[in-house]
Amino acid sequence: MSQHPRRTPTGAAVLQPHKTSAITEAVLDELAEHGYGRLSMEAVAKRAGVGKSALYRRWPAKQDMVVAVLSEFSVPLAEVPDTGSLRGDLRATLRGLHGWLTHPRFARILPDLAAEAGRNPALAREVERAVGEPRRVRGARVLARAVERGELPADLDVELALDLVAAPLYWRLSVRRVEVGEGHLDRLAEVLLRALGATDR
Amino acid sequence: MSQHPRRTPTGAAVLQPHKTSAITEAVLDELAEHGYGRLSMEAVAKRAGVGKSALYRRWPAKQDMVVAVLSEFSVPLAEVPDTGSLRGDLRATLRGLHGWLTHPRFARILPDLAAEAGRNPALAREVERAVGEPRRVRGARVLARAVERGELPADLDVELALDLVAAPLYWRLSVRRVEVGEGHLDRLAEVLLRALGATDR
Repeated sequence: MSQHPRRTPTGAAVLQPHKTSAITEAVLDELAEHGYGRLSMEAVAKRAGVGKSALYRRWPAKQDMVVAVLSEFSVPLAEVPDTGSLRGDLRATLRGLHGWLTHPRFARILPDLAAEAGRNPALAREVERAVGEPRRVRGARVLARAVERGELPADLDVELALDLVAAPLYWRLSVRRVEVGEGHLDRLAEVLLRALGATDR
Repeated sequence: MSQHPRRTPTGAAVLQPHKTSAITEAVLDELAEHGYGRLSMEAVAKRAGVGKSALYRRWPAKQDMVVAVLSEFSVPLAEVPDTGSLRGDLRATLRGLHGWLTHPRFARILPDLAAEAGRNPALAREVERAVGEPRRVRGARVLARAVERGELPADLDVELALDLVAAPLYWRLSVRRVEVGEGHLDRLAEVLLRALGATDR
């Protein structure tokens, strides 16, 4: 960013996008290195090169800051463009999930966050509201498109289907910590097509 | 236990089963309350009412003690009797998984352990060796029985199949922390039968 010629800032609003990004990066770095429990607003401010007041202007507390950053990072990755077929959409969904779960910093953040959520019900609820639910809404759109195309039965159990799509990669990458080999995602897509009862496979 | 009349102990061997069980309980209690990182041999000894030497006689270090106890607790729960059909075996497998993941103490231990394993590769390898692998061997037996019965194709991708059976419940119960309602396990079993390509459904 510093390599680009920049106009003289004319006000705080001009700096906002740059500031936001530095803060986001600092939160992700601190989460990956120290975990949620030991993360402090002070360390994030120092790392981002901003005053603590810049953080408190946006978020009343650490939990709000972390949940907002995780949402900003995680939800767009669940956006899957319409490829024209369920098979194509599923493959794109699995590639997106794989990218999310193997992202160098996020791969360290997620298991720590799951453990923290187990001890902290308020954090668990907020992560579900700002990360889990919006991601599932996007996943449900993929399934609804397939129902419209006549590729999936209209009475599909969407809740169960969403679990089934997301879970095997999380289990393998984040719990068992086994990498997925060449072709694994496409084989998984075929198994999921069968599991969901897709027609015209 | 103290309510039962007991014969006078005639030697250390007589006390062994009682001692082992008290230690197992103490390790599970300490893990659930304080997590792996803050667990100490000293706290376990105190809680179990034994000397630290009783622990060090069996295990050189904390990691060995914890892995042994987790293995002792987790592996028998993956033992599924032959019910005569893949559907019956899968339902029993899912009930066993559900019991494992919702066990009051273990439900708190598992996410913490996954997070710790992310920071500690030696622990991750030992948990996989003593808990993950033996559980998967038992799961693979269930699938092999079904292949022998002609219920599953002989070229089944066993690795992928084992992920597919275990992952959705872990994702729902331990990550999303959503309870499973009445009939969920049986619906999941039907979806898995389809996913695995079971014949004669």
